Amino acid sequence: MTDSERTRFTHVDQRGAARMVDVSAKAVTVRSATASGFVTTTPAVIALLRGEGVPKGDALAVARIAGIQAAKRTPDLVPLCHPIAIHGVTVDLEVTDLGVSIVATVRTADRTGVEMEALTCVAVAGLTMIDMVKAVDRAAVITDVRVEEKTGGRSGTWRR
Amino acid sequence: MTDSERTRFTHVDQRGAARMVDVSAKAVTVRSATASGFVTTTPAVIALLRGEGVPKGDALAVARIAGIQAAKRTPDLVPLCHPIAIHGVTVDLEVTDLGVSIVATVRTADRTGVEMEALTCVAVAGLTMIDMVKAVDRAAVITDVRVEEKTGGRSGTWRR
Amino acid sequence: MTDSERTRFTHVDQRGAARMVDVSAKAVTVRSATASGFVTTTPAVIALLRGEGVPKGDALAVARIAGIQAAKRTPDLVPLCHPIAIHGVTVDLEVTDLGVSIVATVRTADRTGVEMEALTCVAVAGLTMIDMVKAVDRAAVITDVRVEEKTGGRSGTWRR
Amino acid sequence: MTDSERTRFTHVDQRGAARMVDVSAKAVTVRSATASGFVTTTPAVIALLRGEGVPKGDALAVARIAGIQAAKRTPDLVPLCHPIAIHGVTVDLEVTDLGVSIVATVRTADRTGVEMEALTCVAVAGLTMIDMVKAVDRAAVITDVRVEEKTGGRSGTWRR
Amino acid sequence: MTDSERTRFTHVDQRGAARMVDVSAKAVTVRSATASGFVTTTPAVIALLRGEGVPKGDALAVARIAGIQAAKRTPDLVPLCHPIAIHGVTVDLEVTDLGVSIVATVRTADRTGVEMEALTCVAVAGLTMIDMVKAVDRAAVITDVRVEEKTGGRSGTWRR
Amino acid sequence: MTDSERTRFTHVDQRGAARMVDVSAKAVTVRSATASGFVTTTPAVIALLRGEGVPKGDALAVARIAGIQAAKRTPDLVPLCHPIAIHGVTVDLEVTDLGVSIVATVRTADRTGVEMEALTCVAVAGLTMIDMVKAVDRAAVITDVRVEEKTGGRSGTWRR
Repeated sequence: MTDSERTRFTHVDQRGAARMVDVSAKAVTVRSATASGFVTTTPAVIALLRGEGVPKGDALAVARIAGIQAAKRTPDLVPLCHPIAIHGVTVDLEVTDLGVSIVATVRTADRTGVEMEALTCVAVAGLTMIDMVKAVDRAAVITDVRVEEKTGGRSGTWRR
Repeated sequence: MTDSERTRFTHVDQRGAARMVDVSAKAVTVRSATASGFVTTTPAVIALLRGEGVPKGDALAVARIAGIQAAKRTPDLVPLCHPIAIHGVTVDLEVTDLGVSIVATVRTADRTGVEMEALTCVAVAGLTMIDMVKAVDRAAVITDVRVEEKTGGRSGTWRR
Repeated sequence: MTDSERTRFTHVDQRGAARMVDVSAKAVTVRSATASGFVTTTPAVIALLRGEGVPKGDALAVARIAGIQAAKRTPDLVPLCHPIAIHGVTVDLEVTDLGVSIVATVRTADRTGVEMEALTCVAVAGLTMIDMVKAVDRAAVITDVRVEEKTGGRSGTWRR
Repeated sequence: MTDSERTRFTHVDQRGAARMVDVSAKAVTVRSATASGFVTTTPAVIALLRGEGVPKGDALAVARIAGIQAAKRTPDLVPLCHPIAIHGVTVDLEVTDLGVSIVATVRTADRTGVEMEALTCVAVAGLTMIDMVKAVDRAAVITDVRVEEKTGGRSGTWRR
Repeated sequence: MTDSERTRFTHVDQRGAARMVDVSAKAVTVRSATASGFVTTTPAVIALLRGEGVPKGDALAVARIAGIQAAKRTPDLVPLCHPIAIHGVTVDLEVTDLGVSIVATVRTADRTGVEMEALTCVAVAGLTMIDMVKAVDRAAVITDVRVEEKTGGRSGTWRR
Repeated sequence: MTDSERTRFTHVDQRGAARMVDVSAKAVTVRSATASGFVTTTPAVIALLRGEGVPKGDALAVARIAGIQAAKRTPDLVPLCHPIAIHGVTVDLEVTDLGVSIVATVRTADRTGVEMEALTCVAVAGLTMIDMVKAVDRAAVITDVRVEEKTGGRSGTWRR
């Protein structure tokens, strides 16, 4: 990334018009990105998610699968994202005493990074968790959705 | 909402299997939901979003439009959400000293509430803001995505 | 359904051109449809699906969720289907000694029946089962995808 | 494919969580898959599909086109399928005395096989045939949806 | 439509922000819209489309079906369009000496008009015609895509 | 392109059946396509688009973003188009005294050309312009949607 890229938005041109940046000259290389987020909810929901007294069943599976599918949908959702070949996705959901921790890793061998795909995966897994628990907790919150690490590409590895 | 609904997940049945709850007997009424969220970013990005020195151009418009479109895509993204007639969407983006505040309101005249649609609108507007600024700030964070208010339906008005 | 409807395809006009039949004059009524299907596979896969020796984990959940989502996607997949308000979906998967039995029920309060939605739900749940087991059994088969029952609408209840 | 892959589901990890398997290290090679299926229907429908007395028109074309489009939609429908570059699709529909035979071949030059794309193509062509004939035959059945042959990739050619 | 609606864009608010206008208070009534367009091409293509010497096969059917499906996709394509219940679509394609004439009619019983759905149907049928003929005529043009007539809703019938 | 390709439709086989032509043997090369179109509207709309008296706001941005997103959706809309890696998109909208001029350029490094992607981008930007202005001008027309230039691939550069 050059200095000038660091000081302006690459997604708008000099007149301010939105555009999809041309990446056709970038190399196909193996890249990965890991993003995380958290869904804050109530002790009552946490007990249900831990299966205390009732079958938790597919509750976490639905969020995990929604996240994986959303990673594939990223260019449909984020207007200036390039369509990209997603080559691997994992979503880890951990129920803690305060809510549900979400960590997603996306891998590709393509011309751009997959940070947006990892973030989209986390955000939609989080939305799906809220949908799952909303009958019990209307006030659940998605928070701290952010990139933790990326590897590959011209700029190499970056960690928060 | 009955007591038993308050103490279990309506999206899984007694064996734990995911299902889309039957709402065919619910009334078609006017309903609304407002959700909010925040994208935390750097002073350099905030200066760009305020158009200091460079045209901010379509930067906020892209996020606003992505949010509106995502509200319509909610049942595609959140597996157990009902397809619903979205009848109105507004997305307000405000650049503050710490980042971008996002508030979305969704309205419908249909059989279920639109909380998930409002949340999805905010989350995808937030993802799009991060995509817009990521060349300048890789560490931007989406935080505090939550329902602020709902109106209509059997349970009436709820405010955080 | 009139006699003439029984003796021609309603989806093509008199010249043979495909069309989406006008249903704007049909009544909004509660309707349901149940469809079934079967995925034939090997004893090795059945043992895995029953969780013998390894965690079966999300295997059946993925198919169930894919089926529910596909029901919502029916008008995108089947060109002449009407977009319709899906108001409830259940998918039951049962592992038998010969494979996996799939039964889906879709409910709506709208102007057309939901037989195609129930069939699409079963077919895509079946495709997802095959995807899940294909590393162990390449020869799995989806069979007997068919409507079992419909209720509501002008023609009332029909059972196979 | 290793022995251990043959004896477990690659789509769930050791704890049972669904994932999209990482294929970024697999080679881009030319691959194909052929799948088949059958729609069983009544003599009255078969006469209509053969154009006896009425124009059959677009009836088979709709199913053929729906199948081609569905092949492209496979990763949207089957949650753990990789998005893949579909490079060619043919769908053959043959009206027999018992119903409609469907054979689809999908080709790609990419990192994973296209068996799921060929199966999805056949299944959705079958669903569309049922939609086309349902006004005349409510009891039509999709049966025997299965892979017939695959070529390319590490495991080479496989035939049923 | 009021005077003030006639003199500003309803899709942007007073500050210029895009929004989806709230139609939840509009009545559900039967509405229709007819749009037309034309694809200009060469005599060589016209001869092929008329089946002179070679089977024209599915050429026009593909465009007709693509148009019908696109009508359903309108709210996915046009960001501020409401998702709407499409209740009927017909697409007429006529091969003339100068090209292909396209006329589409969309019907609904819903809260907003279907002019955009009819226009989208025509535009995508036109794009598909160009795709079909492009190996023979790279210079084909889509022209005169416009609303011809609408009926229903508060403003009643309008004809060009 | 061979002589025989020039004299028949490549998208239908010898029996007339629609197919997606196999391009797996074509080379991955950098390709581009530029398409243009025009939306004819009234002086009142043109004054609004130029921001005379009222904020034009996001009006042109919505069309630009819709066009970019539609370029990515081309294989979903045009049934026989290959899914393709879109690597760059620009959309220029210019308000003239007669209406809005649209020019779009799409770039890729893939196995087929992107003419259809550029045309789809223009057509959907045009549809979105019509949606934006329709409250003021119901009679707006999309016209002259056509390829201006293509580069790359086996047949090299072509200009209208």
